[in-house]
Amino acid sequence: MQPTTPAASETGDPLLLTPGPLTTSASVKQAMVHDWGSRDAGFLRVNRMVLDKIVELAGGQGFVPKSGKLLVLINGAYGQRARRIVEIAGRAAASLEMPEDMPPDLPLLERMLAEDKAITHVFAVHCETTSGILNPIVEIAAIVASHRRRLLVDSMSAFGALPIDAREIRYDALAASSNKCLEGVPGLGFVICRNEALEECEGNATTLVLDLFDQAEAFARTGQYRYTPPIHVIVALGKAIEEHAAEGGVLGRGRRYRDNAKVLIDGMRAMGFRTLLPDRLQAPIIVTFHMPTDPKFVFQRFYDGLKDRGYVIYPGKLTVADSFRMGCIGRLYPEHMKGALAAVREVLDEMRVSNGGPALAAE
Amino acid sequence: MQPTTPAASETGDPLLLTPGPLTTSASVKQAMVHDWGSRDAGFLRVNRMVLDKIVELAGGQGFVPKSGKLLVLINGAYGQRARRIVEIAGRAAASLEMPEDMPPDLPLLERMLAEDKAITHVFAVHCETTSGILNPIVEIAAIVASHRRRLLVDSMSAFGALPIDAREIRYDALAASSNKCLEGVPGLGFVICRNEALEECEGNATTLVLDLFDQAEAFARTGQYRYTPPIHVIVALGKAIEEHAAEGGVLGRGRRYRDNAKVLIDGMRAMGFRTLLPDRLQAPIIVTFHMPTDPKFVFQRFYDGLKDRGYVIYPGKLTVADSFRMGCIGRLYPEHMKGALAAVREVLDEMRVSNGGPALAAE
Repeated sequence: MQPTTPAASETGDPLLLTPGPLTTSASVKQAMVHDWGSRDAGFLRVNRMVLDKIVELAGGQGFVPKSGKLLVLINGAYGQRARRIVEIAGRAAASLEMPEDMPPDLPLLERMLAEDKAITHVFAVHCETTSGILNPIVEIAAIVASHRRRLLVDSMSAFGALPIDAREIRYDALAASSNKCLEGVPGLGFVICRNEALEECEGNATTLVLDLFDQAEAFARTGQYRYTPPIHVIVALGKAIEEHAAEGGVLGRGRRYRDNAKVLIDGMRAMGFRTLLPDRLQAPIIVTFHMPTDPKFVFQRFYDGLKDRGYVIYPGKLTVADSFRMGCIGRLYPEHMKGALAAVREVLDEMRVSNGGPALAAE
Repeated sequence: MQPTTPAASETGDPLLLTPGPLTTSASVKQAMVHDWGSRDAGFLRVNRMVLDKIVELAGGQGFVPKSGKLLVLINGAYGQRARRIVEIAGRAAASLEMPEDMPPDLPLLERMLAEDKAITHVFAVHCETTSGILNPIVEIAAIVASHRRRLLVDSMSAFGALPIDAREIRYDALAASSNKCLEGVPGLGFVICRNEALEECEGNATTLVLDLFDQAEAFARTGQYRYTPPIHVIVALGKAIEEHAAEGGVLGRGRRYRDNAKVLIDGMRAMGFRTLLPDRLQAPIIVTFHMPTDPKFVFQRFYDGLKDRGYVIYPGKLTVADSFRMGCIGRLYPEHMKGALAAVREVLDEMRVSNGGPALAAE
């Protein structure tokens, strides 16, 4: 029961139901079909727009000095990775680790900050894509501020779709990417930071290429990158940011992703799938589903069947449960999610999996 | 006297007579008009091809251990940068520095290696794009090998067009880029190294993201990148490598660049320009010309006049002389260089610069 025409993006590619790389618009990719000099005024105008707009949307590396100590909040692979990055950088670190389906224990965070005066900075992941959990970033920021410590935020998979207003959430630095909710192509990470925080960073970086202080100084002096930038990726991001604004910015983009997530979760539950997270912890970015228990369900066949129909999903990354993930971000609309649900139904039927049935509660 | 139609690349952009970013083919850029999952088998096949072919063409960071000492051969900005990278990485360093228009002093290199037993590695730039000088990499490698030290090569601007045969030139690691003589788009640096050298590198890297040992291990185990790679850039590089092979590989590409350089240098000399370097030191990558001495020559007008006609050149980066640079690499053919010469002639005439005259000797 092969469908006649697989689903496809505007450029004929399978739809990526993954949290990045993700499906981008045809016009974003088309922006890359040109060459620009890295000192070219036209390119530098696009780059300036990109840098300005990114900061506007917000309202690190190298931010923890050699004498600092970072408390890393961990509930997934990206928190774990931050811990490793800090260790390689030779900075002191502590961690507050939770299971992947639980938000950080806030009273414990309070206690650790009160007891360990050596901690200078706290690191938190906004949306931990390991599970898809939305961490309580407003509450974390309030606690960190009340203890007069500094906050570093990994908002890679949330920035551009979930609000993170600098007037409400005080942070020293926030890192994000060209290729998540801004819907550019992969190849550019960026950091938004307070000027005062950046000014204190001279000499903190452990590599020349990742030295944000040095690059910021070069921008101020010459308006240019120190080294050849990924020009095509930046120009594509410029186009992607225009399209983000046209969709209504963070609110508009967030609304579409929430619509996508609702269609996906409702439809998957109606087929008997269970989400890892209760709705109140679920970010509308990527959804983790428990593997069906029916032994006739073979994940590789499920994956391949969906791929044949034009939908690429993501294996799980959890230690707490056997699972797979489906993303809601990128150039995807509710009708694409409905198409993905129809494909899931077809592949389940093909495998004769008796998962199908009445909707189950999420918890 | 504005020409009616400015010169343009296959996609209508000005021709970049710069050493990267450079002009790429329409088909290379067209390869980016698709999205791929980073774990997608199709993408991983392209990536495997890219990695294999790059090594085939050859016949670092993290290569100097904490207890090592690097001798940096400097005759331009890229040697200076290498010295800074090593210092930030906290490794001991010495340098052998020459003026920008001189190759390294080889007897002095011999003496430094004989006298300073702490030196474990030597770093050399293959073609130093500051001036366009071709450093004597075969002779340097022979000296380093005879003193039983290890060689690290920056072949950024030469790899893919100038031969560097691993059977002739023994090195531990060689770094190059997607966007120079391979004619891909910018956004990917890579390192080619001996397996035995890489195996000794565990724990040497000062950052997680630049840890080549860790990435090589991930490739061996999963065939995948550890973190989202710049997919579109890699797929474009795959296409660029196909076109490199179709042109006759290193020999064919090198021949076209030499043809470009000859047309450019002969034509510029015929208009009274002097090259910084004598022909025997000149790599066919980028050519540095002395600024004309006529006070009517204003570089910004010269630059803008050429840009209006579709040719982008490069300001000088020298400390030894007031100069500008014109690149010979990228999707450029001798007829493009002839067009650039005609544009130079027009702009000189427009400025009424009396540079024009009989050819001058290069030295």
